[in-house]
Amino acid sequence: MPPLKNDRFLRALKRQPVDMTPVWMMRQAGRYLPEYRATRTRATNFLTLCQTPELACEVTLQPLERFSLDAAILFSDILTIPDAMGLGLYFSEGEGPKFKNRIINEKQINELPIPDPNDKLQYVMDAVSLIRQELDGKVPLIGFAGSPWTLATYMVEGGSTKTFSKVKGLLFEQPQAMHNLLDKLAKSVTAYLNAQIAAGVQTVMLFDTWGGILTSRDYLEFSLKYMRQIVAGLTREHEGREVPVILFTKDGNEWLENIVDTGCDAVGLDWKLPIGMARKRIGDKVALQGNMDPCILYASPERIQQEVAEILASFGAGNGHVFNLGHGIHPQIEPENVKVFIDSVHEMSKVYHQEK
Amino acid sequence: MPPLKNDRFLRALKRQPVDMTPVWMMRQAGRYLPEYRATRTRATNFLTLCQTPELACEVTLQPLERFSLDAAILFSDILTIPDAMGLGLYFSEGEGPKFKNRIINEKQINELPIPDPNDKLQYVMDAVSLIRQELDGKVPLIGFAGSPWTLATYMVEGGSTKTFSKVKGLLFEQPQAMHNLLDKLAKSVTAYLNAQIAAGVQTVMLFDTWGGILTSRDYLEFSLKYMRQIVAGLTREHEGREVPVILFTKDGNEWLENIVDTGCDAVGLDWKLPIGMARKRIGDKVALQGNMDPCILYASPERIQQEVAEILASFGAGNGHVFNLGHGIHPQIEPENVKVFIDSVHEMSKVYHQEK
Repeated sequence: MPPLKNDRFLRALKRQPVDMTPVWMMRQAGRYLPEYRATRTRATNFLTLCQTPELACEVTLQPLERFSLDAAILFSDILTIPDAMGLGLYFSEGEGPKFKNRIINEKQINELPIPDPNDKLQYVMDAVSLIRQELDGKVPLIGFAGSPWTLATYMVEGGSTKTFSKVKGLLFEQPQAMHNLLDKLAKSVTAYLNAQIAAGVQTVMLFDTWGGILTSRDYLEFSLKYMRQIVAGLTREHEGREVPVILFTKDGNEWLENIVDTGCDAVGLDWKLPIGMARKRIGDKVALQGNMDPCILYASPERIQQEVAEILASFGAGNGHVFNLGHGIHPQIEPENVKVFIDSVHEMSKVYHQEK
Repeated sequence: MPPLKNDRFLRALKRQPVDMTPVWMMRQAGRYLPEYRATRTRATNFLTLCQTPELACEVTLQPLERFSLDAAILFSDILTIPDAMGLGLYFSEGEGPKFKNRIINEKQINELPIPDPNDKLQYVMDAVSLIRQELDGKVPLIGFAGSPWTLATYMVEGGSTKTFSKVKGLLFEQPQAMHNLLDKLAKSVTAYLNAQIAAGVQTVMLFDTWGGILTSRDYLEFSLKYMRQIVAGLTREHEGREVPVILFTKDGNEWLENIVDTGCDAVGLDWKLPIGMARKRIGDKVALQGNMDPCILYASPERIQQEVAEILASFGAGNGHVFNLGHGIHPQIEPENVKVFIDSVHEMSKVYHQEK
């Protein structure tokens, strides 16, 4: 593999000194970019885009051509795992992800396979290898997966949901069946992320998009427990280099201390909690990633710069900050505004990283 | 007005002793009840249902026939105020509320009237009087309004939204225009709730459904500030009786202390924070209303009872608990399960209210 030219992101995740605060964006490869929309038309559907390594590689690299991002993130979907388990993932236009065979009963859970990542998910590993080659050491590559709880919500609901009635119904009525499902998913995610690491990703991130809709009790028992299990099972060193782990629970600020306690290297924050307050709560135990409100990118360049300045000041001097949005970038954002954002993080953060 | 036969709810809101914990449900008059769906067919659309005092009264009383609820809540919609301001509210089937004239610029904001509640909103006051008559003192009647920020989201977006891009765009780019809008809304809501109190409601509740999507900084400046302004302007005593005020910000647990500080009598909680932890944080300053996950009502009677027991134990002995769901009841819930829920709150809570 080619040597890494920019390790600002990896250093910040390990709370080591950097020259400026590294920055990337959740969904940085996506619909807000005209070149993404152009590539998208070459795939029959969204899933084909994920499953074709050349196309996945192409869209992964697109934002790096435009912006001085400090990391690339594998272009894929969190639902590749349930698809590899045989649930039949498809995307219906405008309605989001759906499963042909949703999980209805315990028998199905017992029969679910733990997918071999080098079999049905080999297309992901091929994409990782290709992206690493094409990146040529420019920046590190992030691999990712959905948290077991988040995957379970889609698998039990059969797609997106507003009420979470089916998945919570299972949780409340058949907690043991739910635990079986989550344990299988934790094992599948661990194997999947370890295969991504073997294929070349230099950091892994777990997305717990729906942990925040649980009560505290249920979050700890049904979501965080399985993320902890995954963190414990991950390859933490590869090719002589540590592989940092980032956990992100949207709407999970109240459990920050518990998340830190899993043994992860960094916690992703949504935009609700001031990052300085989060830092105060957890001290220097882990790095923090975030946390600008993605809606700021609808505003003027001046307003964007003002917000970047405020978040940098909130975190303050010292190591361990990876700048990011508090959630994925919206498809309607103007790429020009993204450039203002990325550049101002770099420019304005230098003062916080001067040697004493 | 007829004398009140059951003041358990009002006493709990003032943290006075009660024989058992009072209980009601957000959206207790609604689609989960077949009798509601029957009445609904007699109105041309949802807005007509709200605007016809006889029908609004009928659906308000329906859940009280089935369940031993300790309060009734006026059947209406939070968007009556923007409608009375001239925005042209309508409900398109399956898509939620929409406005014919959404707020696009500052000029419109400057021209918005503060509606006289006894003119265009007289239908609400007529419903209140009629309900009070028909209730005949059975339980107290709750009046309500949306928070200024929550109303502003619908007025600027033109309806429901997932991204809040337009309303946050206005907030970020034209904060002064946003403040003008929110100030007008706070004045309108104050006048509206005071008119409801004059017409007979015995408690008022402010619903801040969308405060929780803001950063801490923006929540305090653009949502809580205007709820505080409303609390300060409300009639707190009417006909020799105190009128308690309940504030509810969904996803607002991180600001609990700030909400308490507005001078309200009670805070509504969503289901995320254990109610005992909330009580620990705020002491005996206000009453707490909540906070069962509404999805528990999909489960079995035994599971519902178990959850009720856990929440009662979490709050513990002492005064100041109004039992409720952490959000509105879902339309798919079986009324039989609601009966189990309501009855078990009463039965299981007696032990926490015995005289020492």
